[in-house]
Amino acid sequence: MQLPSHGSNPQHLYKALEINPPEELVDFSVNINPLGAPEAVKHNWGKWLEAIYDYPDPTFAELKQTIAAKEGIEESCLLPGNGASELITLIARYLQGKKVLIIHPAFSEYEAACRSENCTIFHHVLYPPEWELDETSLERKLGLVDAVFFCHPNNPTGIQYDRPTVEWLIDTCQKKEVLLILDEAFYDFADRPVTFIDKASQSPFLLVLRSLTKMYSIAGLRLGYLAGTPEVLSQIHKRQAHWSINAIALKAGKTCLDDRQHVLLTRDYIKRERDRLFAYFREIGFQHSPSAINFYLIRDPSSRNQQELFSFLLRKGLVLRHTYNFPGIEGEWLRVAIKKEAENSLLMEVLSEWKREN
Amino acid sequence: MQLPSHGSNPQHLYKALEINPPEELVDFSVNINPLGAPEAVKHNWGKWLEAIYDYPDPTFAELKQTIAAKEGIEESCLLPGNGASELITLIARYLQGKKVLIIHPAFSEYEAACRSENCTIFHHVLYPPEWELDETSLERKLGLVDAVFFCHPNNPTGIQYDRPTVEWLIDTCQKKEVLLILDEAFYDFADRPVTFIDKASQSPFLLVLRSLTKMYSIAGLRLGYLAGTPEVLSQIHKRQAHWSINAIALKAGKTCLDDRQHVLLTRDYIKRERDRLFAYFREIGFQHSPSAINFYLIRDPSSRNQQELFSFLLRKGLVLRHTYNFPGIEGEWLRVAIKKEAENSLLMEVLSEWKREN
Repeated sequence: MQLPSHGSNPQHLYKALEINPPEELVDFSVNINPLGAPEAVKHNWGKWLEAIYDYPDPTFAELKQTIAAKEGIEESCLLPGNGASELITLIARYLQGKKVLIIHPAFSEYEAACRSENCTIFHHVLYPPEWELDETSLERKLGLVDAVFFCHPNNPTGIQYDRPTVEWLIDTCQKKEVLLILDEAFYDFADRPVTFIDKASQSPFLLVLRSLTKMYSIAGLRLGYLAGTPEVLSQIHKRQAHWSINAIALKAGKTCLDDRQHVLLTRDYIKRERDRLFAYFREIGFQHSPSAINFYLIRDPSSRNQQELFSFLLRKGLVLRHTYNFPGIEGEWLRVAIKKEAENSLLMEVLSEWKREN
Repeated sequence: MQLPSHGSNPQHLYKALEINPPEELVDFSVNINPLGAPEAVKHNWGKWLEAIYDYPDPTFAELKQTIAAKEGIEESCLLPGNGASELITLIARYLQGKKVLIIHPAFSEYEAACRSENCTIFHHVLYPPEWELDETSLERKLGLVDAVFFCHPNNPTGIQYDRPTVEWLIDTCQKKEVLLILDEAFYDFADRPVTFIDKASQSPFLLVLRSLTKMYSIAGLRLGYLAGTPEVLSQIHKRQAHWSINAIALKAGKTCLDDRQHVLLTRDYIKRERDRLFAYFREIGFQHSPSAINFYLIRDPSSRNQQELFSFLLRKGLVLRHTYNFPGIEGEWLRVAIKKEAENSLLMEVLSEWKREN
């Protein structure tokens, strides 16, 4: 069975599984902020029409200034991109033909992009229920490669490792001269965020990747950035297409980053809903990953096969994310985004129904 | 003196030349449709806000269908991209390390992108006043390379070569197994357009590149596409970032392509204004390239140095495009876009002023 390898666009999923989609779908497969975009984005939308007619600023000057001021790093240590996906593709191009380690489970794009550039891929798989890093084995593998991808907080588990653990990884990579790509796409959803962006401007062996599309709910506009040393970034930038970021994403990016309140409200909301959901899962005997952010993994340990649960929910119009293409999980868990209160409650209701029938 | 290598963003140009920009600028350096975007784009703008929250369709299905129906080719023979620039970067990646010929004068991005991919660059320079192809010399050079870029109608001259001339190039490339990249970014501005897109789906040695940002005045949104055989396109697509085209560009692209009236009105308008401008240039003794589209080259043959004319116009707030980075022209001509009637008239007035003073 060939399932779509990404969340979003659920119609492909129903087609692949030959399930008739009900009229109303709730998409839990996409990890976007359930509170939506900042009000200022909606408010300014009308006047941004003017920006579509001319070329966007190819130097991204205003956006870079905004990020630099917010993060307290130099503009020369930043490279914005057409979504984190473009930056992953450019990093892969930079790593062409090299040996690349991926800490799994992880976002599938790292491997896909690196394979397209003829990299040799090595895996380091973490296992449930705690998905611990396993330093001894990881350190040995780092001796064999040129670069390593680590998604932190992790996608799909949602786990935020403690600061010393990630520092150990950063230091070990520095010592072994291995380029660590730390994907912080979801770091700002944690109520106590852990970030290492300040270190990226100081070491040629660390790149920190950020996304603006999740927290600010602008996935349709595409926007992300990379932090690193100017020397490494200029090598990566060499292959970036001219005018790669569209004018509306540039406008929205600045507007979003100026709205700090939106992030604080989101964190509070996510924590409250996550606590409510996890309490319910404990009550009905579901397992969940110890997520610190806006999505998590679940499984029904009393079911032989999570695929049945997945299909049951699809028939009810609840679209979760399958995990067949996450090494180390391989369909044994389902990934769920935290959505609006009523939608999370609906999930709980439908899971109660599943428990009654199974 | 280091001048910006592209049109648009005139503030960089004033800074480089240390000229104080007057309050009002008219930018003749960007080759965008002076009639603006189709009305339907403005009309639908408000409702497209909804599209920014979720991921765009990564398969570009609806846009592909629209292009395929309009051009009468198979969807599998199309690859849309985040502006023609992204597609040029992807083509360069596909040509990595190969020998590439560029027919000059030409858009500077071909060479920049190919150099970033360690291609060896060969030049074939065409010369004024007719910029003829020089088949004998060109055929010899085609024997030495793997690929050739030809911008047709040409940027910066605006020349549309006759059909048999371009057919000769296509056939010769096919015979010599050289990949021809025919950039048709401006083909639809000609009152009698010449296109070879139907041949691209039949030959692995032809790619036709199109842009939607010029005719439809949506440069800020970034949108273009490539036509070729499915085999070649799939190799090129392998390195394209996921969700590379933003959701608003996808919406606008379909809306624009559905508006055929806009193209017809534009062609009529451009022809009328071009005729008016060229009659004036003959009258004042200016030389111009025999352009068939929405921009042209001019020079004052009585002036020792076109740089003086360029600076004179800048001081008056009229921003033309310098040609220092176009081999074979090297600053001896200036490129001018056809703009709104009043703006073209202003250009004529200021040129009359120049003639009086020089």
